[in-house]
This record gives sequence, C-alpha cells and structure tokens, in this order.
Amino acid sequence: MDVARAITGRTRLFAVLGDPVVQVQAPRLMNALFADLGHDAVLVPVQVSPAHLDTVVHGLRATGNVDGLLITVPHKVAVCRVADEWSTTVQLTGCANALRRQPDGRWLAENFDGAGFVSALAASGVTVTGRQVALVGVGGAGSAIAVALLQDGVRRLTVCDRDDERLRSFLARAATRWPGQVTGTTEPDLRGVDIAVNATPLGLRPGDPLPFDPHLVPRGATVADIIMEPAETALLRQARALGHRTQPGLPMLRHQLEHYRRFFGLDRVTARSTSPEPRSTL
Amino acid sequence: MDVARAITGRTRLFAVLGDPVVQVQAPRLMNALFADLGHDAVLVPVQVSPAHLDTVVHGLRATGNVDGLLITVPHKVAVCRVADEWSTTVQLTGCANALRRQPDGRWLAENFDGAGFVSALAASGVTVTGRQVALVGVGGAGSAIAVALLQDGVRRLTVCDRDDERLRSFLARAATRWPGQVTGTTEPDLRGVDIAVNATPLGLRPGDPLPFDPHLVPRGATVADIIMEPAETALLRQARALGHRTQPGLPMLRHQLEHYRRFFGLDRVTARSTSPEPRSTL
Repeated sequence: MDVARAITGRTRLFAVLGDPVVQVQAPRLMNALFADLGHDAVLVPVQVSPAHLDTVVHGLRATGNVDGLLITVPHKVAVCRVADEWSTTVQLTGCANALRRQPDGRWLAENFDGAGFVSALAASGVTVTGRQVALVGVGGAGSAIAVALLQDGVRRLTVCDRDDERLRSFLARAATRWPGQVTGTTEPDLRGVDIAVNATPLGLRPGDPLPFDPHLVPRGATVADIIMEPAETALLRQARALGHRTQPGLPMLRHQLEHYRRFFGLDRVTARSTSPEPRSTL
Repeated sequence: MDVARAITGRTRLFAVLGDPVVQVQAPRLMNALFADLGHDAVLVPVQVSPAHLDTVVHGLRATGNVDGLLITVPHKVAVCRVADEWSTTVQLTGCANALRRQPDGRWLAENFDGAGFVSALAASGVTVTGRQVALVGVGGAGSAIAVALLQDGVRRLTVCDRDDERLRSFLARAATRWPGQVTGTTEPDLRGVDIAVNATPLGLRPGDPLPFDPHLVPRGATVADIIMEPAETALLRQARALGHRTQPGLPMLRHQLEHYRRFFGLDRVTARSTSPEPRSTL
C-alpha cells in the first residue's frame, strides 16, 4: 500500500501524543493493524509539550474525523482532565493511555498498560487468576498492572513502593473496590508468591540496584519486569540463572494492540464503501 | 512505500482542513510529493466545522510537529483570523488556503489560488504580462486570481461581479496597491481583451447561464474557467467551437503544488538522518 494513495479525504484519524514523540512505536504497530483489518484509518505522531496538552487535545476533539488518541509519557496523568468519562482502571490509577470518541461525542479515557501486561503473561502460559502476586512499584504502570491483576482475580496482591504517600494513596483507592485483598509492604514481600513483578524504573540503567532479590522468590515462580530496554534486565538475567520462569517487558506493547483494537471498535472490514466522491477540491 | 512503515515518530505533519473533507485531493497530491522529494512527512485530512475552526487550528498550532495547513471550503476566509502574518495576496483578498509555521513559531497565511491559475496558464503557453484581461467574479478565487494577474504585470484588468458591494470592496483594496490599473464594470467588458476568465460558480450545474458571451471575445483570445467539474464547461465548449484558445480549471490544482512545495520549503532530501532512536514507547 502506497502512503500517497492510501490516505484520502475519507481516511479516519488517530494520533499518539507524547513529548518527545520521535521514539513511539504506535504509528508502525497501529498502521499495520489498520492495513491488516482493511480500515481506512491512519495514526500519526503528535508532539505536544505539557504546557500545550489541553489546547492540542481540545483541538483534536473538536475535529470531525479524529476517532481516538493514544497517550504516552509525560501526558498519561494530565490527559485524564480533558476526558469526559473514565474507565474503572483510569479512576483507580489516575492514568490513561487511550482515549476514544464515544457515539455521543463524549471522550472516554482508558488505560491498557495493565491489561497488556496480563495478556502478555497469559500468552507465555502464566495465568494470574487465583495466584499470589508481589508487585514492586505502584506508579503509573505499576498501579495499572495492580488493577489488571485484581480485575483478573488474583488471590492476594502485595504491593510496595519507596514513595510512602503514593503507596498509601493506591492502597486506599484499591480498598474501595477490592477490600482486604491488597496489602502494602515497605519491603518486597516475596514469601509464597507465584509471580513477582518489577514495575519500577530500576534496571533501565546499567548501575541500578535490583528492585528485589530474585533469591527470595520461591522455586517455580515467575519473575516479570516491565522494562523494555534492555530486553533482559539484570533482574531477569539473575532470575533466569536461578531457574525461575521470566517475563520481559516488551511483549506488553504488542499485547496492548489487541486491547486497542477492541477499544476502538476495529473489526475486520469485509467490503469497502463505494459511495461516489463529492466534487474534488484541493 | 508501505504506510505502516512510512510513518514513524519522526514524521512531520501537514493537514488539509475542510467541511466536508472527504473530497479533498491534497492527501494524494502532497503525499506523492513528499515521497518523491524524500521528505519524512504526511498530510492528513481534518474535518472541522466552522464553529470549531479556531479551536482546531489553535490545537494544531500548539503541537510541535505540525508544520503546515492547507485550507479548503468553507474556511478560507475565517482561517485568516487565526494566523499571525498575512501575505500581500491574503491581505488583498481576505482569503487564505495555506498556513505555515515560521521559524519564530508565528503562522503565516498565504493564498495560491491565483498563483496556481497563472502558472497553469503559463504552462499552456499563455503569459499574462502586458496583457489585457477581463475577470468575471471577485469572490475568494476571483480576487486571488486578480491579485496574481496584477502581480504578474497585466497591463489592464477589468473586473465585474453581480455583488456590487463585493466589487467595490475589491476595487478599493486593489487601488491601494495598483492605482488606476483595475476597472470595475457592471457587465463583462470583453473589448480588446487577450484573456477572459470566469471565476464565478456559473457552469457547475447543467442549466447555468453562461458567465459571459464567448461571441464577444476577440479572435485569438484565451477563454479560461476556474470550474473543475465538469472539466469542460458550456462556456469552454462554446469558446472552443468559436476557435478560441481555452483553459480549463483543473490544472490550477496541480500547478498549486509547486507553490506549496516552495512555501513549505520542501527541497529534495539527499540523505536521511540516521540519528539513533530514544527508548521505544507505545
């Protein structure tokens, strides 16, 4: 498909908002999805600074052919204020990474960071339902993963975070929906866990300390990391050497695609519209 | 070039704004131009109603990677108020069909409707310098053509319009820059003309009266029409039958492309940037 011929006046628009935006993979992934499904749509990158986020989102919302937005760093928290409706996950995490135009013109904010993580685990043969999970880090991605784990029926979840205020705040929000099911700890509590998850930035840089000690993870448990680069962090490398099953971060991205597909209502198109074009203009 | 691979986080953005927008040819033409020149840029259609024009343009302006806008019906007049600088043609016509981000972040409005018309004439071997021209209709496109003819050195220009207020307003504006060179007439004045131009909508519909009588055009003169569909209007058909040289409207579009190319600073790219990508995110 030639880009010059692929985009016409009928093409529907999606955008990914970030600052910077040069690194985003969404155009490649989503445009391949549109092409695969036969959708006449295109996703473009939009670079927007925090100071201009509201102006840009209000502008995109006011168009007639922008149907959805993906949101990346640093806008996942701030974008929530320019939505009209918020999913349970967004309400509990305060973060969104996808917005769509509803049929009534209102905009719904969703967050698939956690759902992508759980889907990636499931694709590796690790189910979370009924399991005991330790999660380290309840920032944006961590709290989204916690909510997805709880929604998918983990038996018990322990969460810890160096930021005490952030930890208490998350525990209070989670308790409104899953009372008694989440425990906060000051140090990672790995006793008896089936899955231990790093959702902190530790491991991005070569000299970082480990987020938790993989020696303390029970035999047969899974050690998961949300860090995408390096593909195998020091944590995962040591966990693998100890015989643990490991789950890297990168598959989260790919597994979010299926959630985006459903969220944006992108079913396979079997026949294209052949309605006549109005008069041409530039 | 595969659309899925062609668009990345580094791709620069252009948009064409209209209401409706399904009929626009700009995505096809401009994306072919970007591909031909080796520019990592894409132009997308943006449907925006008049009530939301300001919000949408302010939003697009506030991004960091939207470099230019093309403007089509019905926004060519209204868009002028959201620009920061105005070319001579925009100042004289009150219409713009292209905006670009200046290096200082201000937005300049331009209008290439007239330049495209004159370029298309020139490509057909009809020069306007030193010629006498009769122009019927001084609405958006007509006034832009008048200005382009004057800028290209027509000797004498007579303009007429059924809307007396519009005619007087245009004559007053033109006189500030080309005093004594433009004459207003209530009926088309075709005596001695080298070129007679229809810039009214007459001819769009089958039953329309002719904008002027081609029998009154001197032998050897050119009859031009800005109407694009039908490709040959009744006016052009009769003029051709009378042995006049004729100039249809459609080439105006294609000839505007070269003006857009220069306006947006789109030179041929000889080597692509190979700077490393920051860490991937969705």
